[in-house]
Amino acid sequence: MKLVEVLHMNGGIGDISYANNSLVQRKAILMTKPIIEQAMRDLYCSLLPKNLCIADLGCSSGANTFLVVSELAKTIEKERKKHGFQSPEFHFLFNDLPSNDFNTIFQSLGEFEHDLRKQFGEGFGPCFFSGVSGSFYTRLFPSKSLHFVHSSYSIHWLAQVPNFIEKNKGNIYMSSTSPPSVIKAYYKQYENDFSNFLKYRSEELMKGGKMVLTFLGRESDDPSSKEGCYIWELLGMALNELVIEGLIEEEKVDSFNIPNYTASPSEVKYLVDKEGSFTINKLETTRVHWNYASNTNNENIYNNGGYNLSRAIRAVAEPLLVSQFDPKLMDLIFQKYEEIVSDCMSKEKTEFINIIVSLTKKT
Amino acid sequence: MKLVEVLHMNGGIGDISYANNSLVQRKAILMTKPIIEQAMRDLYCSLLPKNLCIADLGCSSGANTFLVVSELAKTIEKERKKHGFQSPEFHFLFNDLPSNDFNTIFQSLGEFEHDLRKQFGEGFGPCFFSGVSGSFYTRLFPSKSLHFVHSSYSIHWLAQVPNFIEKNKGNIYMSSTSPPSVIKAYYKQYENDFSNFLKYRSEELMKGGKMVLTFLGRESDDPSSKEGCYIWELLGMALNELVIEGLIEEEKVDSFNIPNYTASPSEVKYLVDKEGSFTINKLETTRVHWNYASNTNNENIYNNGGYNLSRAIRAVAEPLLVSQFDPKLMDLIFQKYEEIVSDCMSKEKTEFINIIVSLTKKT
Repeated sequence: MKLVEVLHMNGGIGDISYANNSLVQRKAILMTKPIIEQAMRDLYCSLLPKNLCIADLGCSSGANTFLVVSELAKTIEKERKKHGFQSPEFHFLFNDLPSNDFNTIFQSLGEFEHDLRKQFGEGFGPCFFSGVSGSFYTRLFPSKSLHFVHSSYSIHWLAQVPNFIEKNKGNIYMSSTSPPSVIKAYYKQYENDFSNFLKYRSEELMKGGKMVLTFLGRESDDPSSKEGCYIWELLGMALNELVIEGLIEEEKVDSFNIPNYTASPSEVKYLVDKEGSFTINKLETTRVHWNYASNTNNENIYNNGGYNLSRAIRAVAEPLLVSQFDPKLMDLIFQKYEEIVSDCMSKEKTEFINIIVSLTKKT
Repeated sequence: MKLVEVLHMNGGIGDISYANNSLVQRKAILMTKPIIEQAMRDLYCSLLPKNLCIADLGCSSGANTFLVVSELAKTIEKERKKHGFQSPEFHFLFNDLPSNDFNTIFQSLGEFEHDLRKQFGEGFGPCFFSGVSGSFYTRLFPSKSLHFVHSSYSIHWLAQVPNFIEKNKGNIYMSSTSPPSVIKAYYKQYENDFSNFLKYRSEELMKGGKMVLTFLGRESDDPSSKEGCYIWELLGMALNELVIEGLIEEEKVDSFNIPNYTASPSEVKYLVDKEGSFTINKLETTRVHWNYASNTNNENIYNNGGYNLSRAIRAVAEPLLVSQFDPKLMDLIFQKYEEIVSDCMSKEKTEFINIIVSLTKKT
């Protein structure tokens, strides 16, 4: 399996699409707002760029893609008005893997730009938009061409499923029952990928450029702690139930592993320091209840939690699952998953842990 | 009808797709090669850019999209090796209207880049690719960000159907039977659009930047001469036959006009000089026989000419026709068209006239 060809959010705008099931991610973007704003303000005031070049890595397609851009534009617009400066030219670069639905982004840009102009008035912009396809674990942009890099809910994805020397039997992610060699292989892959990520971005950012990254992680220093792994552990349980029912071969679950890594703040700090290109301005964790997958306008939020979370994870993981399991089983897998998740949510405090790190490229 | 939402080549890779019916356009690119190469060499040797930024406007999607890029890269690669220079970073920007199939471009980039690297070896690149959607009659790129602009078989398309004060009765393009006011409206629209095109590109190109444009035109100074208009006149004849057969309302043909303008070299020179941002290095015309729509490997080339040309025009014009006429009529329209075109090709010398202009931004 070539991950760059398989990994993408569910496309389109239908019932199981990412566009319609990405409220957790939206919540994460909104929670990170103050840190992003601070970084953007600092960047703008120190460099005062005439042409401000901003990349969003793992932009997906849907409302969240544009939410980020509009928040960033708002911050600069406020700041430049405060100082009486002319608006910079904005250049927004949307990046995701080649299987992302860029056509939908491009077809929505006209309306989005119109809305921005209506919101900010005539003095704003101009804005230019580009799509850039490819893995952010490779070089994506010309040298020293970027001022700001943003990435939300993306870099917990690894460049590939780690190479294991032992089977991760009965599991699809790190878990307390995984062999130590599996945990180690996951960390090695993360170390390699995150270090590459930092190195390539440091080549692309100009002097003084900044980067704010938000991703799923854990607070505990134990990589197999429930905090970081629970959501996938429960998906493994759903798959194992289908093994028991004879609908999935055991071997298929044993050889399936989610290419994800939920890092701890100390791992992040260690790897940033070791790579050496960036200074850490902020490194924080926040918590989002699993119920945030629900539409928060819905009064039955606590009743719908399992259903909505199951759909949110389906929008993210279905293309991966389909590469290993019969596509016809997807409805059943996520029905099981919903039951398991709902049960957990009724009994335990279930939360995602977000790590937010704000970095400046060293001069 | 908003043209930017309607105009695009037939997508996909099927029988009536642009990707499989774009040999005329391929021929035009290959005929222009010496002029493009000269412009690229001059540009490279005078600016020696570390990061060479090249935009292809109206890139469509398919083999032609990549043919341009690979020819440009080859020229630079030859030149820099001759002088013993290090390869620049290449930054290729693919532009077309938002309805173009960018997803297909992005999904082919991995293989294309691999091929480039195989062809040129390790010292080549790196290459970066971006997609930029939008009309080239607006600003598309940040100020002074481009070194080179290429556009082939695109800028004969107007930004919109001209505003007419009289009906262009019985015609779908300029013709000898069109009222003078229609011819004038077409020219006014072209003057406006081409002048905007030059103005916006001059803002985007850096000092000394160059531009090579190839488009359908005519040699005659008469805008309604057969040279420039014949291909659409024959399509109008096909539509009129369906009017006679009662399958299309006459009014629908009378109010349908192709948003195209086939300019003459003297019109081009006049407008470039009037706009004032560019020096003309070369302004030439070439001729391509309509038969070049055929696959030239085919022995029956002269027998297939009408069929192939009809498909080539269908790939280009179908989205426009579908916005005005019943989509169910398309097969029939292009069957009629094929008959008419074949008949002409057997009796007359039928040629497209290409205009090629090579420009340098004034300092």
